[in-house]
Amino acid sequence: MSHTQALAGFLAELKYDDIPSAVLDRTEDLFLDWLGSALASQGSHPIPLFERYAQRMGPSDGPSKILVNGLGTSAYFAALVNAASSHLVEQDDLHNSSVLHPATVVFPAVLAAAQDVGKSGRDLLLASVAGYEAGIRIGEFLGRSHYTVFHTTATVGTLAAAVAVGKLLDFDTEKFINVLGSAGTQAAGLWEFLRDAADSKQLHTAKAAADGLLAAYMTLDGLTGARNILEGDQGMAAGMSRDSVPEKLSDRLGSRWALAETSFKFHASCRHTHPAADALLHLMQREDLHHEQIASVRTLVHQAAIDVLGRVVVPQTVHQAKFSMGAVLGLIAVHGSAQLIEFEQQALTDPAVAAFREKVSMELDSEVDGAYPVRWLGRVIVTTTDGRTLSAAIDEPKGDPGNTLSRPELEDKFQRLLAFSGARTVDQGNALIEQVWQLRDAKSLTNLN
Amino acid sequence: MSHTQALAGFLAELKYDDIPSAVLDRTEDLFLDWLGSALASQGSHPIPLFERYAQRMGPSDGPSKILVNGLGTSAYFAALVNAASSHLVEQDDLHNSSVLHPATVVFPAVLAAAQDVGKSGRDLLLASVAGYEAGIRIGEFLGRSHYTVFHTTATVGTLAAAVAVGKLLDFDTEKFINVLGSAGTQAAGLWEFLRDAADSKQLHTAKAAADGLLAAYMTLDGLTGARNILEGDQGMAAGMSRDSVPEKLSDRLGSRWALAETSFKFHASCRHTHPAADALLHLMQREDLHHEQIASVRTLVHQAAIDVLGRVVVPQTVHQAKFSMGAVLGLIAVHGSAQLIEFEQQALTDPAVAAFREKVSMELDSEVDGAYPVRWLGRVIVTTTDGRTLSAAIDEPKGDPGNTLSRPELEDKFQRLLAFSGARTVDQGNALIEQVWQLRDAKSLTNLN
Repeated sequence: MSHTQALAGFLAELKYDDIPSAVLDRTEDLFLDWLGSALASQGSHPIPLFERYAQRMGPSDGPSKILVNGLGTSAYFAALVNAASSHLVEQDDLHNSSVLHPATVVFPAVLAAAQDVGKSGRDLLLASVAGYEAGIRIGEFLGRSHYTVFHTTATVGTLAAAVAVGKLLDFDTEKFINVLGSAGTQAAGLWEFLRDAADSKQLHTAKAAADGLLAAYMTLDGLTGARNILEGDQGMAAGMSRDSVPEKLSDRLGSRWALAETSFKFHASCRHTHPAADALLHLMQREDLHHEQIASVRTLVHQAAIDVLGRVVVPQTVHQAKFSMGAVLGLIAVHGSAQLIEFEQQALTDPAVAAFREKVSMELDSEVDGAYPVRWLGRVIVTTTDGRTLSAAIDEPKGDPGNTLSRPELEDKFQRLLAFSGARTVDQGNALIEQVWQLRDAKSLTNLN
Repeated sequence: MSHTQALAGFLAELKYDDIPSAVLDRTEDLFLDWLGSALASQGSHPIPLFERYAQRMGPSDGPSKILVNGLGTSAYFAALVNAASSHLVEQDDLHNSSVLHPATVVFPAVLAAAQDVGKSGRDLLLASVAGYEAGIRIGEFLGRSHYTVFHTTATVGTLAAAVAVGKLLDFDTEKFINVLGSAGTQAAGLWEFLRDAADSKQLHTAKAAADGLLAAYMTLDGLTGARNILEGDQGMAAGMSRDSVPEKLSDRLGSRWALAETSFKFHASCRHTHPAADALLHLMQREDLHHEQIASVRTLVHQAAIDVLGRVVVPQTVHQAKFSMGAVLGLIAVHGSAQLIEFEQQALTDPAVAAFREKVSMELDSEVDGAYPVRWLGRVIVTTTDGRTLSAAIDEPKGDPGNTLSRPELEDKFQRLLAFSGARTVDQGNALIEQVWQLRDAKSLTNLN
């Protein structure tokens, strides 16, 4: 039996009652976190372009809801727009060792489908767990080389979304094998857009969720796909990886819950900046340093951080600032925080942030690189204007499983996300929080929006 | 100026009056050939699955037409279903050196968009030429290594469709650069499905046309894309090729008309079988041989033929038979023809074809491989049951530019394609032929279906 077959068999057999209660709790946590991320992007470019596209190409109404505008549409377009929305403000979750953002691809697809076919909160939780478990393992399978050129959340996200919708549609092993084939052969997404701060990141997650949903619906109707799309000679690993690890596909299925390893984002920036941001914050608090006392900051990082962040020198947009190590550390140093509000109000315009940005450098570090992607270590070396050299180390950034956000912290983050865009009032936000904390008892998801 | 910029500038500047009359004639030829291919698949699996998906996810009516069922829908779903349809019976065109089937991705997208936004036949011809010129050059740019794992018509097809729709929407250079970025980052499609004769080939062309159209419509509204998606460090060539040739992107723009190099398919099988099929037919006619007099056929082929055809030993489906060198040569030898009707009625069931199939082998040949993909040489060596060794060589298979199909031959092929599925009567077919031969005078394309 191949690793792909083992994975498909696990997905088919997985039952709600097999899932530990703590994993279900965490799934609700992740769902709330995702919902906030989606609503936070209301009105921000390029989300209205996706809304317009859905209106132009889709039906004028339908059972699935677009979160940012409340309109009904078909499942395909709800998945498309909601997945674009939830990856914009860089506050959605991340699984470290797969370098996959699962929420932004899994939840839009599975919620749209659940609203379409009339499934319950339990069905959604089970399907979401299936999507996370498969997506994370496929991301790990493709290895580090994949991520150097391909945006894993786009490529692997297509399969994660397809699996989640497939589980919602009660697929057996055979259908899971086929849906992996039809999703994998649609998997796409290149990092090249980062250089230009182009809008592709939203396009990537939108298409991953929607294409995965398409694969699942068509598989249900009888479309067949390659039976070995992951491991085959002309499959994903053959074409898009140089260091794939087939064993990862079936790694501890049923005993390891990869979903529970997923990290919440605390800072509103690219996750590759978080370890250094936490380490710098820790150092400045420990040493009671003011940003003007700092002459330079050397951040010791893994190679992927250099690949993803290395290109942005002087950020021209808020989005680019989120991918600038200097800008992020500048916000941390000058304002003590790098949340959405600081990015909007300070990242591009505050001269103190710009001045601090120039003091920050990145260096590849063998210890940090060796630990990645399983652990994202934060290491900074600061020289002060009075000639001291100080260093700090953080082994689990805020939001990682060992340093996770509590439900009150998640609720607080959720309300901050809603307030940022004005998509919902505080009372509406509280009502949504209540709905999510009772997700496993919801008979229908029609009113979740 | 990069090669991508040169290509984008050419596309923006291209005018109808710049295009030689012979190229416009050939575009109409290719359009008719495509239309027949699409209609020939009516009712064949998996096309009804795409029709159902469009009905479930799309609007109940719209300005763009689905050819196989005549229903109106939005441009996105018309492109999706028509592109799935036109690649099923393996009768659509092929450009040799790019190994791209341009028609099945360019025409569905551009016709759907032209019906949607109310463009004329001239607009469609101009936009189609733009799609062919760009797609063929991008296919050549990605080199032979790309095709070993990726289905070029799927990957490059996304960009070709995007460019065609972009031209229809009057894009300037800047918008062409952006639409290449948004299309290129969606480019996907792996050959792995061939091993299982899965339905992905239709999914690939469907998604290429529809995703390309999506990229163009959203670019019109302001979506930005990577500015160097083809040549950049984290772009298509970096991720999906080992032998890209940037100069190909701007090869003789405005003087070389790559569209006119496109070949029509004569046999109803994978194009990689055609050179050998023509050579065998020529040899049997020249020597007046009967199939029972043949003891073995060695076909001398290029590596890509072995990669694509090598896996099928005993075909289980008609589709697999089209990818079996033995089955194709068996039809040629026993029935003198490998058209759709022979595939349906004889390829799997005729014992004489099965017996002949066992006599056929493929061998990599350095001359044939060296000429590929610019020229597709046919070389066969036949041993007869009475001990003779005979050989034949064909340098331009039937349908290639130097051995092309005349308009009467194209009309005949068109009517055979319609008769195969019963999608249209002979009279309806003749009316469609008339419409296509007058395409450049058509004010509207609403009634072309």
